Amino acid sequence: MGEFELLAKLRKRLPSPGPRLRVGMGDDAAVSVPGGATATSVDAIVDGVHFRRSQATLPQIGHKALATALSDLAAMGAEPGEAYVTLGIPADLGEEGCMELLDGLLELAATTGTSLVGGDITRSGQLFVAMTVVGHAAAEEELVTRAGARPGDALVLTGEIGGAPAGLLALEYPEAAVVVPVEAAEQLRARQLEPQPRLAAGRALARAGATAMIDLSDGLGGDAAHLAQASEVRLRIDPDAAPLADGVAQIAAVTGNSLWSLALSGGEDYELLATLPAERVEEARAAVEEAEGIGLTRIGEVEPGEGVEIKPRGGGPVEPRGYDQLG
Amino acid sequence: MGEFELLAKLRKRLPSPGPRLRVGMGDDAAVSVPGGATATSVDAIVDGVHFRRSQATLPQIGHKALATALSDLAAMGAEPGEAYVTLGIPADLGEEGCMELLDGLLELAATTGTSLVGGDITRSGQLFVAMTVVGHAAAEEELVTRAGARPGDALVLTGEIGGAPAGLLALEYPEAAVVVPVEAAEQLRARQLEPQPRLAAGRALARAGATAMIDLSDGLGGDAAHLAQASEVRLRIDPDAAPLADGVAQIAAVTGNSLWSLALSGGEDYELLATLPAERVEEARAAVEEAEGIGLTRIGEVEPGEGVEIKPRGGGPVEPRGYDQLG
Repeated sequence: MGEFELLAKLRKRLPSPGPRLRVGMGDDAAVSVPGGATATSVDAIVDGVHFRRSQATLPQIGHKALATALSDLAAMGAEPGEAYVTLGIPADLGEEGCMELLDGLLELAATTGTSLVGGDITRSGQLFVAMTVVGHAAAEEELVTRAGARPGDALVLTGEIGGAPAGLLALEYPEAAVVVPVEAAEQLRARQLEPQPRLAAGRALARAGATAMIDLSDGLGGDAAHLAQASEVRLRIDPDAAPLADGVAQIAAVTGNSLWSLALSGGEDYELLATLPAERVEEARAAVEEAEGIGLTRIGEVEPGEGVEIKPRGGGPVEPRGYDQLG
Repeated sequence: MGEFELLAKLRKRLPSPGPRLRVGMGDDAAVSVPGGATATSVDAIVDGVHFRRSQATLPQIGHKALATALSDLAAMGAEPGEAYVTLGIPADLGEEGCMELLDGLLELAATTGTSLVGGDITRSGQLFVAMTVVGHAAAEEELVTRAGARPGDALVLTGEIGGAPAGLLALEYPEAAVVVPVEAAEQLRARQLEPQPRLAAGRALARAGATAMIDLSDGLGGDAAHLAQASEVRLRIDPDAAPLADGVAQIAAVTGNSLWSLALSGGEDYELLATLPAERVEEARAAVEEAEGIGLTRIGEVEPGEGVEIKPRGGGPVEPRGYDQLG
């Protein structure tokens, strides 16, 4: 199998890209006429670091690569546009394996309105998938950075957290997963293996006046600290208010992990953490429910100062972790 | 070393990006207001495939990663704009090593007017550098694809070829390199380790009416075939006309390689192959000399038909190779 044949086969399977694209896969570069503002993010997943081939199917690996990249666009409130994939292919993954992986990627591309318009394929000792995604907005003011939170804003969280790290534990220790009902264990594993980028929720939050936003890739504690630092504010978080996915507490208990550690420092939930004027929380909640079918929960406040204060009910501050996790 | 600390250190070293960029490294995505048309390309280099850590310095690896990506923009005639880097870092490459690699990348970024505006760092068993580069043009019509060659056009080549594959042989078989003068051997190795993207030449060719263009990453034979296929024309190439880098013939002879194989099928020279109206060749030659300080040589013609005909003086056709090289 050569790179060219594989890319040629891939091209034939791609749906027609959006109106911005003028030259797609197969030339030296993709040509686009973006208009407005673009948000561009790069994200890679590597075998043994972000997934294990023994635990994830090839379509799940392709899905996760694109999902984690698109999650950054969700956190900007951008409309997804184009995606570019670089595949590092080990010797034991043949052409069929590559196409299976790309199938998972293309399925998520289709459901999110993303066009795969460029790629590179190289040999590699270890499977990796490096993605670049480009999102769009009519004007740069419509995009939400990490830097606009203001004291007095409310801090809100989409969906439920803890599912992805609990799912990882359920994959690593299948015997532990029996403490939760089969369906709940399946959902936890899916949170880890097939994360859903909250694109519709991100755009809904942007329209509802979000002043700052970030996606939870490193865990609530660490990502809240990034937002606080960029906005030069202090975030006070009530972790008891944060909704946990079903089964997280049981998996934490049976594997000997503290629930706080799992829910606050476990990464890869890919929910959105945003700040917005307190009086718009209800409007935002309704918009997120309507757009994405998930909840939006107020979990804290923005204050003057710096850093993150995490105060569980009846307890002292919990130190957020996860800063030093490479990758 | 954590990803965040390294990226924070990197941010401090970056020069101010161009006027299009509104949000740079450190948020979920970079925000840009491109205007006009963009050309976007992705390209990765992997240890053991595109370089060897035993042969290349870390700055050379960073240089090569960006250079090979920018070469695709050169082949579009685009002005380089933004670059995004994804680093896969093995355990034995510490923070200092990462910064050395990025130094080489940033030096080329500075000399080419490219802004590094985004990145991702992950652990990996094997060092890899995946780049995304975005180039710009005032309008899409200014960008040159592979698809516009017309029968009657002349086929031209920038600079000299064979240097990068001969340089690779000189690195792999140091004892063979003694057949050429020390300085020539050094230049051949530099062609392999520190390729120069022909950005100025590419823009000059675009202005001089290039109808199709491609960069030589896979070798003259293979890349000519890509251009012929995209343009639905036949390319007749006189390989005797193609200028060879000093020492290529000697290295080929002493390593038992056919000169044709080395010059036509050896990749990574990153020169530009372009078609343009025959009456504009002289204008293009002067423009490339002025812009990039290298020669431009007419090496063939565009004819109706398909495929590539390579006819050396006094010999039969030479079959181009390199189609099945993965990576």
